[in-house]
Amino acid sequence: MTVLRSYDEMLQAAAQAGPVPVVIAAAHEHEVLLAASEAQSRGIVRATLVGDKSAIQRMAREHRLDLAGMPIVDEPDHRAAANRAMEIVASGEARVAVKGQVQTPVFLHAALRREAGLRTERLVTHVGVFEVPGFDRLLFITDGGVVLFPTLEQKVEIVSNAIAVARGLGVSTPRVALLAAADEVLDELPVTVEIATIVALQERWQAEGAIVGGPFLLDTAVSPDIARARQRGGRVAGQAEVLVGPDVQSVNTMAKGITYFAGGRMAGLVVGARVPLVVGSRADPPRTRLVCIAAGALLAARTLAS
Amino acid sequence: MTVLRSYDEMLQAAAQAGPVPVVIAAAHEHEVLLAASEAQSRGIVRATLVGDKSAIQRMAREHRLDLAGMPIVDEPDHRAAANRAMEIVASGEARVAVKGQVQTPVFLHAALRREAGLRTERLVTHVGVFEVPGFDRLLFITDGGVVLFPTLEQKVEIVSNAIAVARGLGVSTPRVALLAAADEVLDELPVTVEIATIVALQERWQAEGAIVGGPFLLDTAVSPDIARARQRGGRVAGQAEVLVGPDVQSVNTMAKGITYFAGGRMAGLVVGARVPLVVGSRADPPRTRLVCIAAGALLAARTLAS
Repeated sequence: MTVLRSYDEMLQAAAQAGPVPVVIAAAHEHEVLLAASEAQSRGIVRATLVGDKSAIQRMAREHRLDLAGMPIVDEPDHRAAANRAMEIVASGEARVAVKGQVQTPVFLHAALRREAGLRTERLVTHVGVFEVPGFDRLLFITDGGVVLFPTLEQKVEIVSNAIAVARGLGVSTPRVALLAAADEVLDELPVTVEIATIVALQERWQAEGAIVGGPFLLDTAVSPDIARARQRGGRVAGQAEVLVGPDVQSVNTMAKGITYFAGGRMAGLVVGARVPLVVGSRADPPRTRLVCIAAGALLAARTLAS
Repeated sequence: MTVLRSYDEMLQAAAQAGPVPVVIAAAHEHEVLLAASEAQSRGIVRATLVGDKSAIQRMAREHRLDLAGMPIVDEPDHRAAANRAMEIVASGEARVAVKGQVQTPVFLHAALRREAGLRTERLVTHVGVFEVPGFDRLLFITDGGVVLFPTLEQKVEIVSNAIAVARGLGVSTPRVALLAAADEVLDELPVTVEIATIVALQERWQAEGAIVGGPFLLDTAVSPDIARARQRGGRVAGQAEVLVGPDVQSVNTMAKGITYFAGGRMAGLVVGARVPLVVGSRADPPRTRLVCIAAGALLAARTLAS
């Protein structure tokens, strides 16, 4: 099984697969311009910038950013810029939409409203790609904020989307762990019963190129030593790359725990629409912003190739 | 405000307050004997050992443990040892019950069954005392596994119990953050509405010597920089010592995230019965086992003194 060990590996793969045409919505933000410029110079993307043209040009001068070869569509208003970016995606001129200086709900609304033509039959979900210092592989954690309290059917789609992301980004046979507050099915924890049902769909998961297991405590899912100590066998325990949380509260607090206390980084993707939506935030350090864009580009390149 | 910065500080305080009489249930376990021996030599406890006497004596010889001054009550059976330990607590001869070689549910059942006489009017809840490398203070996180899906009333008691633990262990005015997947009250996240209700009980919290705030994202609760960036003022944001999760799933995955990925340690206490119940596990490193016992002893000493 091929696993994806680090953001560096992902950046290299994205450079090999690129350049992918992307559009930045409300690109008048220093952080996203820096990331786009870096991604373009590495051959990962060809970026179209939609935003306040004079502000963009001023930022480029001030911060000495190379925006050569990046067409700018002048649209100072955030919401209008997001809508214009989605039109560019719908026309086929871009294969990834990247959030710039616009709030996530506005960006997602622009992408997912019917008029944009980017919705599909699939559920739209959030997948965070985490790099954690000292940990030997990337983790895909879902759903951190789009589907709040998923039904069983939605949970199945959350799993499918995460598998597609992990495979698209280079994990050949993702091992998916469904997390709970217990390592076994317990009546008093209904999510563990739901998990047993999802795990039972192995034919489906096999067809999607993944192995799904659970319920697992978080550490049983990721640590071979702890999995062994708790006598959890199988091909997922201790080796998971994909972690599916019970609900948004759990995923959110887990994600914050990993990023804040363990110094981890998250590259956020929203998937299920016709193209990947990249939702990095300006609070992310420059490298994480770059990784977010690269993840979207690589996913788009691989999805089109398959 | 006095905060508690580290396990070392807690161990020192426990030695000053001790020795406190404690009982170890099913003490025929090397890890708990080692911790009890260390706690006794530091003047933190006077331990009574209930368990398989010959096994205990063999372990002491093999590992050169000093069990001088620790009476042994011979009871090889786990469940019977737990029950016997609770009788010793009920008689007043011990003020803390410590879990040894017995499963947590069996230990808690022995403590909480009516016959043991240790139940009170208060809700029984779990409080984890966390030390995280690189973080400047101890965190009290609740409820990690006793109350699964608390009602509003139970949530209020969870908060009260955690305040009592934090104060008992040395935090003079605990700042309590109620966590959610958002930093604001949102209809679509019912827990945030519940949190607003709990936060509104400031008179009660003031009477209990604490300040309660929320809803907060985990990082807004603990990081002054992030709280500032998100423009969250008040006396809790960025400075919380007590973190109350939305439900057991969230607390569990957060706790595992902190311990596994950030190398944090948890000392687990179950409170609300007449005495603190110490539920460290044999997977804990020796120092954490010692800290668990010290936390229980210090809490018992302070509770009796007040």
